[in-house]
Amino acid sequence: MKKKNKKVNAAILIIGNEILSGRTQDKNIAFICNWLNSKCGISVEEVRIIPDIEKTIINNILLLSKKFNYVFTTGGIGPTHDDITAQSISKAFRVKYEFHKEAYKILEKYYGKEKFNDERKKMSKLPRGSKLIYNPSSAAPGFVTKNVLSLPGVPSILNSMIENCKRHLSKGDKTHSKTLNFYTVESNIAKNLGNIQKKYKKFVDIGSYPFFRLGKIGVSIVTRSTSLKKLKSVNIELLKLAKLKKIKIFKI
Amino acid sequence: MKKKNKKVNAAILIIGNEILSGRTQDKNIAFICNWLNSKCGISVEEVRIIPDIEKTIINNILLLSKKFNYVFTTGGIGPTHDDITAQSISKAFRVKYEFHKEAYKILEKYYGKEKFNDERKKMSKLPRGSKLIYNPSSAAPGFVTKNVLSLPGVPSILNSMIENCKRHLSKGDKTHSKTLNFYTVESNIAKNLGNIQKKYKKFVDIGSYPFFRLGKIGVSIVTRSTSLKKLKSVNIELLKLAKLKKIKIFKI
Repeated sequence: MKKKNKKVNAAILIIGNEILSGRTQDKNIAFICNWLNSKCGISVEEVRIIPDIEKTIINNILLLSKKFNYVFTTGGIGPTHDDITAQSISKAFRVKYEFHKEAYKILEKYYGKEKFNDERKKMSKLPRGSKLIYNPSSAAPGFVTKNVLSLPGVPSILNSMIENCKRHLSKGDKTHSKTLNFYTVESNIAKNLGNIQKKYKKFVDIGSYPFFRLGKIGVSIVTRSTSLKKLKSVNIELLKLAKLKKIKIFKI
Repeated sequence: MKKKNKKVNAAILIIGNEILSGRTQDKNIAFICNWLNSKCGISVEEVRIIPDIEKTIINNILLLSKKFNYVFTTGGIGPTHDDITAQSISKAFRVKYEFHKEAYKILEKYYGKEKFNDERKKMSKLPRGSKLIYNPSSAAPGFVTKNVLSLPGVPSILNSMIENCKRHLSKGDKTHSKTLNFYTVESNIAKNLGNIQKKYKKFVDIGSYPFFRLGKIGVSIVTRSTSLKKLKSVNIELLKLAKLKKIKIFKI
């Protein structure tokens, strides 16, 4: 495989009525996006949040797994009636939904034979052919089915499992990022920024985000690129722009 | 229009590379979901987060505006090169992208004629026929194009504008919600919960979410329904279940 310019992308599919109802503030999206980019060079290019409805899960799994190199699902892998991720993925890929021997053993050991009831056993039923993503917090494993990696919805458990995803992923080029904070308003630099973006169109992505800090208004200019050299050139131009417009910069 | 059983749904389309890169933790999804449900009786049934790419925005606007009663977009309505929501929506609906007279006047008044430069003027270019969503924080209005409501990405500004969306929305039945916190583990009650859910399948949605509080493990059981009566019946059954299994309950 070529080492240069290897783009690997992913989508995240958040399965959970509790996010759509507004009851729970999602914390997994930013965490997974950050981790994938910084540790694996994988860019998340789409996120979807959908309800716990089998048909909706199946449709989204099929669509996203075709469109992106990887799909990460969160939620719906526990023991209750609303946990239907594994069975939905089985249906999506038309493979059997059955006990996974190793997962069964892990959970049996964790709970002890006597307390290993049907609901707990359910957590070891996975799409046939799945590989396990080990769970150091609460035993119940995540799983990889084709290019779909399924993780739990509870952030602390998900966080503890993320490193175990690495072995299932092919690395891409890391996107480097630099932020300059200009003490100005967007409309004062919009034209210049647009021109710089045009010049570096293919290589650097320039984002402009207003902020309010300690009563001051500013703009965070975030530059992102897989090329450190191009990133440096853009930032030199941005510093020149600040000098030209006499804008104070606050680096973080 | 019938008053009873009026279901109104919506999708949210978050437009922003800064969310997908993991740089920014989204705060708008939970806020909009909560507001729509509690103030307008509108359920959010899908959320998508996509990059600032015109073609992607167009495709998603077309698809979601057909599938749901309303679509809320956030982000991409400022003065910089990466703010392309208005022009993308114009293209999606094949309407002209042009100066909106009232928006132009509002912004001209806000900035003053002399400081009203081309970049600021850009914020008054909207899809033809759009209605304004007034912005009490920073003047630049949001806008409604057909069933698509476009808001800014900065949470404090979005929050200040949300009440101004109301006049553009048709109300639905409010979904009521009740939470019981059981000090137990999910697998201890999964079977019973499943049975109760089956019994109330069409009327009440039961969600089960593990929590950790002050070193204790528990399960939040969230019941949601447009019928307060059915919600009450389900919660009576849940309280009976707790009694049967000798589970301590913590109400919030």
